[in-house]
Amino acid sequence: MDRLIEAIEDKQNPSVVGLDPTEALVPKQVVASFAEEIAEQVEDPTEAPAAQLSVAFFEFNRAIIDAVADIVPAVKPQIAMYEALGPAGIDAYSMTCEYAKQQGLYVLGDVKRGDIGSTAAAYAHHLSGVNAGEHAFDPWHEDAVTVNPYLGTDGITPFVEAATGADKDIFVLVRTSNPSSSELQELELASGERVYEHVADLVEGWGAETIGANGYSRVGAVVGATHPEEGKALRARMPHTFFLVPGYGAQGGTAQGVAGMFDKDGMGALVNSSRGIIGAWKKSGKYSESMSADDALDLVAESAREAAKDMRDNLRAVLP
Amino acid sequence: MDRLIEAIEDKQNPSVVGLDPTEALVPKQVVASFAEEIAEQVEDPTEAPAAQLSVAFFEFNRAIIDAVADIVPAVKPQIAMYEALGPAGIDAYSMTCEYAKQQGLYVLGDVKRGDIGSTAAAYAHHLSGVNAGEHAFDPWHEDAVTVNPYLGTDGITPFVEAATGADKDIFVLVRTSNPSSSELQELELASGERVYEHVADLVEGWGAETIGANGYSRVGAVVGATHPEEGKALRARMPHTFFLVPGYGAQGGTAQGVAGMFDKDGMGALVNSSRGIIGAWKKSGKYSESMSADDALDLVAESAREAAKDMRDNLRAVLP
Repeated sequence: MDRLIEAIEDKQNPSVVGLDPTEALVPKQVVASFAEEIAEQVEDPTEAPAAQLSVAFFEFNRAIIDAVADIVPAVKPQIAMYEALGPAGIDAYSMTCEYAKQQGLYVLGDVKRGDIGSTAAAYAHHLSGVNAGEHAFDPWHEDAVTVNPYLGTDGITPFVEAATGADKDIFVLVRTSNPSSSELQELELASGERVYEHVADLVEGWGAETIGANGYSRVGAVVGATHPEEGKALRARMPHTFFLVPGYGAQGGTAQGVAGMFDKDGMGALVNSSRGIIGAWKKSGKYSESMSADDALDLVAESAREAAKDMRDNLRAVLP
Repeated sequence: MDRLIEAIEDKQNPSVVGLDPTEALVPKQVVASFAEEIAEQVEDPTEAPAAQLSVAFFEFNRAIIDAVADIVPAVKPQIAMYEALGPAGIDAYSMTCEYAKQQGLYVLGDVKRGDIGSTAAAYAHHLSGVNAGEHAFDPWHEDAVTVNPYLGTDGITPFVEAATGADKDIFVLVRTSNPSSSELQELELASGERVYEHVADLVEGWGAETIGANGYSRVGAVVGATHPEEGKALRARMPHTFFLVPGYGAQGGTAQGVAGMFDKDGMGALVNSSRGIIGAWKKSGKYSESMSADDALDLVAESAREAAKDMRDNLRAVLP
């Protein structure tokens, strides 16, 4: 986790921008500007809308990355948004990760993968790439991925090994930000613990052999900003586990609420905002449908930069 | 689930072939046969091995699909094996699904996705495709996908809605086949139930509004063949839930062991074998490195067909 921690210290900003584009979040003229180019490229016209939106997602992301790269340490593309468009979307996801990495950002792939051992080993190529040595090829360009714990240790170990080999990290779901997360994660066990507390202890254990110079392991935890009290308790329970904290902003999490998820030095957590930053242009009051695509992208970028600065300043205000 | 059930009845075979290729499972000469074609196509030579293996995976799958399409009702490509190769692998996954569908097979995408509501809605496009109506485009070509329950109801509902709209299905992880599955899934709750039993009840509930002509809902459950007693108890506990049963063969599950996961009519479960079928050529004693790529693919196909027949016959023998 040291690379991430250094990036956070460098920018003095423990926040990450979620690159989760949807059709509604990309200005229409940006999407429309690729119509001709795509129509010439695709063989089957039914493929055109997905291909067009995929290219628009990448350009939208690129504008945002350029606008925030000197402010934030990391971006977190949510692969589901790209997967929704099929293989063309996956290309846009990989291109987004690559571009963000080229701009010096830590790229956290929000993929929430998880499977039995042999299959988890295949997914772990997200971190280790395709080959070693001279023919090494890293198609995903991620510095970390999120992982689901439901399968237990043998579904996690391959990711930990890949992360260790490639100087990368993983973040395991512990307490997610959504309302229904309570249905499983909050169940009370016969031991008196909650399910998510038991998972928290597993996560702390999974990372134990990989603790870095800053005291945090390569196995982080996803802890939703919507659970401030539980997050604070988990901070104490998981002293070597770095937190990825989604749910800030649009989902209801606040700077005050996440303050308890940081350690005494103001480190130990990375707070994500997606819609609050990439959709800030919609609340700017400056958008008009008659704008050019370039002007619309400029507005997207400028609004995202302002929102990212606000978030940074709000977090700084509650940290030591 | 009615389309799957009809396909099983049609073939009189409740088994599914797992299309989980790895480099070790594809004869070397098949991979080598694409070297020249790929070298001409890729711009960056480091991309060549992944691109070459992706094409080989598809050709390998096509040979197997052709060999088993009249015997089995369904195939289950495991997307992790393709994702391991990056976007090129994802293309091979989508092409595999499309080809299997064209051959009349029910395509069960083993993707184990799961996320919060708005993100799950994006993943649900695996089932609903990209657009409706005239511009409808289905990039994934799946009839069903596997889903992870850790996020609770709001992570499942979008998949159920998409499945209902597209006459498709989902299978939610309940009790997986791997050794470490016990770490979370077997935990005893304060209520006296095990975690997986609680998940089982949620799954039965998630499907309640979607019960089809054959008495099974669109929300199936993944129950490992390696847990015969638990599987039998779950069969009684989940009367409207169809089971996908992985772990047969290479992982240790037997026909005798899975018999209890079927209902009294010998329906209600679909048993998966991957390596036991697609890797049968390695145990045939007929392979030689000097074979041509075509001959090697013929051996793969013929061995897979024999193994699929054996599995069908073994399952028929224990069912009413």
